[in-house]
Amino acid sequence: MAGYIHAPVMQELMKQFGKLPGIGPKTAQRLAFFVLSLPREEVRAFSEAMVGAKETMTLCPVCFSMTDVTPCQVCRDETRDRQVICVVEETADVFSIERAREYRGLYHVLHGSISPMENRQPEDLKIKELLPRLEGEGERRVQEVILATNPDVEGETTALYLARLLKPLGIRATRIAHGIPVGSNLEHADAATLAQALEGRRVID
Amino acid sequence: MAGYIHAPVMQELMKQFGKLPGIGPKTAQRLAFFVLSLPREEVRAFSEAMVGAKETMTLCPVCFSMTDVTPCQVCRDETRDRQVICVVEETADVFSIERAREYRGLYHVLHGSISPMENRQPEDLKIKELLPRLEGEGERRVQEVILATNPDVEGETTALYLARLLKPLGIRATRIAHGIPVGSNLEHADAATLAQALEGRRVID
Repeated sequence: MAGYIHAPVMQELMKQFGKLPGIGPKTAQRLAFFVLSLPREEVRAFSEAMVGAKETMTLCPVCFSMTDVTPCQVCRDETRDRQVICVVEETADVFSIERAREYRGLYHVLHGSISPMENRQPEDLKIKELLPRLEGEGERRVQEVILATNPDVEGETTALYLARLLKPLGIRATRIAHGIPVGSNLEHADAATLAQALEGRRVID
Repeated sequence: MAGYIHAPVMQELMKQFGKLPGIGPKTAQRLAFFVLSLPREEVRAFSEAMVGAKETMTLCPVCFSMTDVTPCQVCRDETRDRQVICVVEETADVFSIERAREYRGLYHVLHGSISPMENRQPEDLKIKELLPRLEGEGERRVQEVILATNPDVEGETTALYLARLLKPLGIRATRIAHGIPVGSNLEHADAATLAQALEGRRVID
């Protein structure tokens, strides 16, 4: 029995959806059929949004976040504190931190983390591009680099690597706190997080 | 504090991803940034695949499945049994059944299910289009309509509605069996499935 195979145009669309992170073959098929159910103008708008974003967005030459203006909105904002740089793995992390409305310094996007397992070395990241940013003078001299890489093995390795790199330069390297998420409860916290939360305990004044 | 907002092109791309079923705002942001990480040619290929599929695929005028040939591959296949029609909710269900390599009859795609809650009436589905297909003569006379709508409230309602419609026409309406999925185990089955599995029990010969 030959079976009933997908039309070539559908196979192609499913292949494309299947490239997206977290999208398996079944979801790819569902999304491809969903696209067919949209009005023609909406499919065209989606299609154009993809190409439009890819062609408009570039890397900020200062902090290496993805941006539509050069330098990016944060780097060009003279009200931001130029004495602190927060190092993150991806541009999306910049938006996560901005949403917290707590941080007023600058950023530096590494575009990944050190991973011997996946053969990602320090030289594959925007690490050497961070160093010239630390050479400012006077008011512009960076005092602190906050290491806000992810709290996984690769992120911790990267943070440790950067901390060792910064030490001889006399710049304070800090690591974001690990602990119980706000609004969560102890029962749901895993042992590693609880251990970090206990270790990072603070005096209540 | 103004905060750091996404570039308009990124907002647009996230809005488009957010329209897809099962994609929330956080996943939409992740997918939008992933698109930026792809090489330009790949983004263009993805974009063109969407428009290509939408412009190529049409409804089969016989069974109403989405197809790139008219009539569709199944309807045009003279080796298929024309005395049985399997009624499904969506074109994707046709592919699911074909993958089982068990069924050799024809299909009819309703494009949805009856849902008073969501105000989807029988006339919103391809039900009236099913009736002329049941009027064949001799070898081409349909003997059985298999109701393969989903085993949820809407799917059961639709199956019942169709069964009542078919009865006066003297055509056998059958419903796909509910029961324990193959390879699963009783412990994981919910009570409603177990009840259906018991009710549908068969003698082992």
